[in-house]
Amino acid sequence: LDYQHVQVPFEITLWIMLASLAKIGFHLYNKLPSVVPESCLLIFVGLIMGGIIYGLNDRSPPVMDSDIFFLYLLPPIVLDAGYFMPSRPFFENIGTILLYAVVGTIWNVFGIGFSLYGICQVKAFQLQDVSLLHNLLFGSLIAAVDPVAVLAVFEEIHVNEKLHILVFGESLLNDAVTVVLYKLFRSFCEMPTIKSVDVFAGVGKFFVVGLGGVLVGLSFGFTAAFTTRFTKDIRVIEPLFVFLYSYLSYLTAEMFHLSGIVAIISCAMGMKRYVEANISLKSHTTVKYFMKMWSSVSDTLIFIFLGVSTIGENHEWNWPYICFTVIFCLIWRALGVLVLTFFVNRFHVNTITSKDQFIIAYGGLRGAICFSLVFLLPDFRRKKLFIAATTVVILFTVFIQGMTIRPLVDLLAVKRKRESAPTVGEQIHIRFLDHLLAGIEDISGHWGQYYWKDKLEYFNSKYLQKILLREYDQPKSSIVLLYEKLERKHAMELAQAGQLGHGPAHPSFLSSDRTVITDQKLEDTPNPDVLDNMQEILARNLYRIRRTGPAYNRHTLPGDSEPTEQAKEILILRHKSL
Amino acid sequence: LDYQHVQVPFEITLWIMLASLAKIGFHLYNKLPSVVPESCLLIFVGLIMGGIIYGLNDRSPPVMDSDIFFLYLLPPIVLDAGYFMPSRPFFENIGTILLYAVVGTIWNVFGIGFSLYGICQVKAFQLQDVSLLHNLLFGSLIAAVDPVAVLAVFEEIHVNEKLHILVFGESLLNDAVTVVLYKLFRSFCEMPTIKSVDVFAGVGKFFVVGLGGVLVGLSFGFTAAFTTRFTKDIRVIEPLFVFLYSYLSYLTAEMFHLSGIVAIISCAMGMKRYVEANISLKSHTTVKYFMKMWSSVSDTLIFIFLGVSTIGENHEWNWPYICFTVIFCLIWRALGVLVLTFFVNRFHVNTITSKDQFIIAYGGLRGAICFSLVFLLPDFRRKKLFIAATTVVILFTVFIQGMTIRPLVDLLAVKRKRESAPTVGEQIHIRFLDHLLAGIEDISGHWGQYYWKDKLEYFNSKYLQKILLREYDQPKSSIVLLYEKLERKHAMELAQAGQLGHGPAHPSFLSSDRTVITDQKLEDTPNPDVLDNMQEILARNLYRIRRTGPAYNRHTLPGDSEPTEQAKEILILRHKSL
Repeated sequence: LDYQHVQVPFEITLWIMLASLAKIGFHLYNKLPSVVPESCLLIFVGLIMGGIIYGLNDRSPPVMDSDIFFLYLLPPIVLDAGYFMPSRPFFENIGTILLYAVVGTIWNVFGIGFSLYGICQVKAFQLQDVSLLHNLLFGSLIAAVDPVAVLAVFEEIHVNEKLHILVFGESLLNDAVTVVLYKLFRSFCEMPTIKSVDVFAGVGKFFVVGLGGVLVGLSFGFTAAFTTRFTKDIRVIEPLFVFLYSYLSYLTAEMFHLSGIVAIISCAMGMKRYVEANISLKSHTTVKYFMKMWSSVSDTLIFIFLGVSTIGENHEWNWPYICFTVIFCLIWRALGVLVLTFFVNRFHVNTITSKDQFIIAYGGLRGAICFSLVFLLPDFRRKKLFIAATTVVILFTVFIQGMTIRPLVDLLAVKRKRESAPTVGEQIHIRFLDHLLAGIEDISGHWGQYYWKDKLEYFNSKYLQKILLREYDQPKSSIVLLYEKLERKHAMELAQAGQLGHGPAHPSFLSSDRTVITDQKLEDTPNPDVLDNMQEILARNLYRIRRTGPAYNRHTLPGDSEPTEQAKEILILRHKSL
Repeated sequence: LDYQHVQVPFEITLWIMLASLAKIGFHLYNKLPSVVPESCLLIFVGLIMGGIIYGLNDRSPPVMDSDIFFLYLLPPIVLDAGYFMPSRPFFENIGTILLYAVVGTIWNVFGIGFSLYGICQVKAFQLQDVSLLHNLLFGSLIAAVDPVAVLAVFEEIHVNEKLHILVFGESLLNDAVTVVLYKLFRSFCEMPTIKSVDVFAGVGKFFVVGLGGVLVGLSFGFTAAFTTRFTKDIRVIEPLFVFLYSYLSYLTAEMFHLSGIVAIISCAMGMKRYVEANISLKSHTTVKYFMKMWSSVSDTLIFIFLGVSTIGENHEWNWPYICFTVIFCLIWRALGVLVLTFFVNRFHVNTITSKDQFIIAYGGLRGAICFSLVFLLPDFRRKKLFIAATTVVILFTVFIQGMTIRPLVDLLAVKRKRESAPTVGEQIHIRFLDHLLAGIEDISGHWGQYYWKDKLEYFNSKYLQKILLREYDQPKSSIVLLYEKLERKHAMELAQAGQLGHGPAHPSFLSSDRTVITDQKLEDTPNPDVLDNMQEILARNLYRIRRTGPAYNRHTLPGDSEPTEQAKEILILRHKSL
């Protein structure tokens, strides 16, 4: 037996296996995951595992290594989050999200830090040796809402899209603020005196860390898109580039002390559109599946490790400090959300309701990032107290808040996510309104989001697409893409049932069989009439729609595409249908 | 800048990136890969990289770590090989493959070892200090044909299936022999005296190492299949289990000093059938794609590292020893193939032609396994000589033999692989013949391969499928599966062209449009008439075929499935088609 030799990969594989099997186990009993969030169950499994290890070895189980967390476990989750980020609600609410992420996090850090310092002054609590700087340092690591924890809980409760993106977007983008404040206070702790210059340098760093992350991410994202232009002959390594470039963007950002999370999100959002157009359908399935799989495994491992690391002798217990930490975390977040939303609502027509505000404040879950940061602290006398307080806050938010948020959402009747995809009609209207509003903003000289979106779209179709896409054809409008997807799904269903017609669809045949279609469709789709009519219209005219370009576009003229190409393709299609 | 912190993942990612980009680079110039095998190009890239590193650092570039090779780079390639192994030709030729792998390898090891020892006795060569044991040890590592190198070259030259499986199967299964002999001689080298008991123990080890590997592999494979029974609710982690269990089988086998390669191949071949039936179509696409991707990356990295490691000061040059090593490798392999094939051909109707024999002998490429094994040797005076000889043999076989094998295959007009998939008619005939031969063997009392195959099939359908498959329905016959695949592809094509008929296929409609189908099909498939007719027959009768079970099976009675279920499903389908 030669265990030493294979130890590292063997143990890693076993941990992943345990995580995956735990996941299967939960889903075998359908009732459990509907009451308790998966993250709680996983932490619970981790606690048991930790207890077993502690019992057998008689010493603390190994704590989650911060390097492993930041270098290997976090990136897949953030990549997944960035790649599948609903870009429309994200950019529509980017202002509010940034306000929460930057101002809200700073508010929380200083609020928690100063009020804990106040508590430390009470002689009865025996905490006078904890300095203000240490309290602020602790505040900077405990204030940040954790994207992994938020995602795990919010994915299960299905609140409306806007509310989801507000909480989740904040948890992602506050990384830049957390990184800066945490490093700032940590270096202050080690400095003998602090000059005002250092404080100003800290403020300047916000912009460097955040914008630097965006820049690094976008440049890697565009390089990835550019690389996939040339993979036509080796489809098999296409998916690799998506992962390689995003990971490189994360590592590069970390290397330069920029925000890795911001970088990988920008990279994923930047590349997605072009990569999807360049790679094959199967490669794309692989990318999507593997991203989900990887992030799901990372997520599971993080929560299990969180549980395992909780057990042991790393903790120093001090009731007042720990209790007040939990209370201040709750209070300052609630206050912050109230104050900030007051300002946000003054400038928006579509206001954030008080129910939504409550869920935003209540959904501020802490997770593995705080946990890793507290272990990264330099050794000093009260580190174990900070570790204990952090652990309690995480367990409190994940267990108590995570388990009660679903009943609360039900109780308050918070607006839920609509389950059905937007219909073709809705999509047409949304697109029409976008163009209309862009036009209005253009005329009125107001540079709002529609104006910028329109300019970006122009830049995209004029330069980016030509460089990054392999076949720079007419870009397909989302309606045509939706229709193609529906057609593909329909074809697969027919093939499955063995009812595929082998001929092209004549209009005459279509109309004579219309009753059959309506019957069939009624069972499958949510609003069959609308879809069905649309589908029929599109089926008859697909060719024409495909060629007329992406609906109306302010930057393309009707006769933009080359007439000879069009004529050739018409000929080919005619020939085929004969 | 904090490079230290991210160094490990950053450098790994960069190496993979380099490998992938090199691959893209080769394929941009279509002419290059058609003349020079990719493996040669990659080694060449590695040589350049090594030269650059050597030039910049003024010291030898790092050699490929044997642990990294055996633990991380080799498993994906072998997993891919095992998972996509054409099982029919493999099992049809398993006797011949085992003969080549076991007897052939032993023959080569002792042949090369003893004749090199003879060379060492020549005083002029100054090699008298190399003992017989050291020569045999060297023989054991240089004799084994390398699966990675063989796969890389043979995948590009498309020889017929039997020839391919003979060379490739040998290269995979000789691992057990190599492991045993290498470890045996290495421990002999360290022993003061060798008793005859040790030699017999070595012989016994063959069976333990080989059969142990098969056992470990199969048990993990069946566990994997069993696990995927329960993944219906979390499709997203399904692909993970395929990778986890196969990797665990490899590591477990290595841990117990069994053959990891044999284990992972048995695991992959054992699980494939059941896993495919259990997991979703998209998961399966992901598994296939990711396996190919991973093995392709590993493969690329291995050849690049091989090139990089060649540069440097690890070599001791001795013309006679190195030249004679190359010559003996060629001679003993050629002799071995000739002698073994003589015996094989006496017992087979379907003989191995002399052209095939030449290609088998010539295709005995050495690769990274030898290279890693030679670096794993304990330090002794002549280790650098062995390293140099191994490097030369690898470069000679990969470059000279790898580059000339394609012209030789053309010149000799070796039978090529047929490019088209077997038609439905052929499949029916093959299946029919299988059953017929199994019956004949049963009656005649001759326990040949058909008899065993039939028994295995019986065991499979009676026990294994019931335990390992989620929906133990009528297993689908390969013909129905082929038909379904064709239908799906056809449906996708129609959907792509926007010509999908929305109604079920009435026979009347079918026949009226028949000319259209034939026209369409002529462009796509190799033998359109056969397929077309079959497809039409199946389309009309798919429902009936789906229910009558897997063609004729000696172990199922016609009325095996429950009549009420059948009736229910007929009703549902009738209702739908109304």
